Amino acid sequence: MKLYNESPAAVRQMIREGQIDIPTSGMCGGYAQGNLAVMPREYAYDFLLFAQRNPKPCPILEVSDVGSREFKLTAPGSDIARDIPRYRVYRNGVLDGEYTDVADLWREDLVSFLIGCSFSFESPMIEEGIEVRHISEGCNVSMYITNIQCKPAGVFAGPTVVSMRPIPYEQVVKAVTITERLPQVHGTPIHIGDPAHIGIKDITKPDFGDAVTINPGEVPVFWACGVTPQAVAMQVKPSFMITHAPGHMFITDVKNASLGG
Amino acid sequence: MKLYNESPAAVRQMIREGQIDIPTSGMCGGYAQGNLAVMPREYAYDFLLFAQRNPKPCPILEVSDVGSREFKLTAPGSDIARDIPRYRVYRNGVLDGEYTDVADLWREDLVSFLIGCSFSFESPMIEEGIEVRHISEGCNVSMYITNIQCKPAGVFAGPTVVSMRPIPYEQVVKAVTITERLPQVHGTPIHIGDPAHIGIKDITKPDFGDAVTINPGEVPVFWACGVTPQAVAMQVKPSFMITHAPGHMFITDVKNASLGG
Repeated sequence: MKLYNESPAAVRQMIREGQIDIPTSGMCGGYAQGNLAVMPREYAYDFLLFAQRNPKPCPILEVSDVGSREFKLTAPGSDIARDIPRYRVYRNGVLDGEYTDVADLWREDLVSFLIGCSFSFESPMIEEGIEVRHISEGCNVSMYITNIQCKPAGVFAGPTVVSMRPIPYEQVVKAVTITERLPQVHGTPIHIGDPAHIGIKDITKPDFGDAVTINPGEVPVFWACGVTPQAVAMQVKPSFMITHAPGHMFITDVKNASLGG
Repeated sequence: MKLYNESPAAVRQMIREGQIDIPTSGMCGGYAQGNLAVMPREYAYDFLLFAQRNPKPCPILEVSDVGSREFKLTAPGSDIARDIPRYRVYRNGVLDGEYTDVADLWREDLVSFLIGCSFSFESPMIEEGIEVRHISEGCNVSMYITNIQCKPAGVFAGPTVVSMRPIPYEQVVKAVTITERLPQVHGTPIHIGDPAHIGIKDITKPDFGDAVTINPGEVPVFWACGVTPQAVAMQVKPSFMITHAPGHMFITDVKNASLGG
């Protein structure tokens, strides 16, 4: 795919001009993509504190200044309201619509959170010879609501959502050490093995995304998932909230390999 | 020293009862100690965002709930207003006094920040055979104001303050790899070598703390310092602020070895 070799700034510009309206997986190889959560300033302190207390599900890549539409540190010159292919807008916790541009909905009291995404650790896994099953099978990653409660902060509380990848037993340690190097994109797994141990009743029925094949000799490995903060925020039913649509991420100018610190 | 082997809860209790009023260095071997910054809620969002943008000088170990006097995650049962041997109270940026107990000054709108401290990486250094000069010489670590600006956040902005330890050339890489394991207590050095490169004019005249001997065959190595957020906060002249007195830290129940994540 030709967008794999394009620069993030160039692809953001194409998105901004309406030339691209598809999921961003595979674009700008090597560059970190992030989940977006935009909310009024009145929720921002509690949300930032929630992220500080729950860094594995909520690894913050950047927080915008109040009212700003630019991620000036990770994507100078970006326009948060126009550089994502598809947005979702929620009012009082209810989906109000999908948009390719939210500039007309922007408000001076909005704060934008950019949250690390597991795309960033899947590339190094593949490079080191670990098959990522949902990529091989061409579907979405399997995600589950667990019985592991996040540490609450202010109005925000709720269970940790995890993503699952089946890993051959002999590669499990390698999967741990690769993701350990990337604490800003969920870091090490939070569980390896028996799904029931973290409250998952049926591994074949994910709460979000798609089921994938688990072969004999493979173990399910679970990482904290960036869907967690969105799910938690949604429970609070904020008066107004903007997120990316699933799979349609914000592309930064930061290399995945630089995320370790 | 007998307090080296005491539990953090026991030592906090002794401090709370007024039995100890000395610096905490060397107490509760292996447990993380932290810097304290307490400020009204109106400053807390900007300060938390400042820390998020500047994790090396401002590694947050915990943020209390608004009005709470307990660090419930890192020190369950603690009393933030009484468990530090000596506090400093500032009004409008001016030192108002030193206290051994600030319970009477507590307010419902206060938020307490616990910030990682380099004590946590000096023990592993010594265990791995690296001499820590200011400990050998029985003085305070050398600290310098650099020309490296922190990333501003809201009302908070200012230069990075660093601590310096002279390290023999053949141990510099080891000093880097040891501190890399501890991102929550400043992590890797921010500079190795020529002090002028980061705006330090005279290495023999630290801005805070004491000068130490640098022997032939040693290089000055600089780490971001927890004094940074206090210095930055002080410039804002908050209406009210409480900190620990230098060297009189808050002792947590968390082992240094657990801080890596």
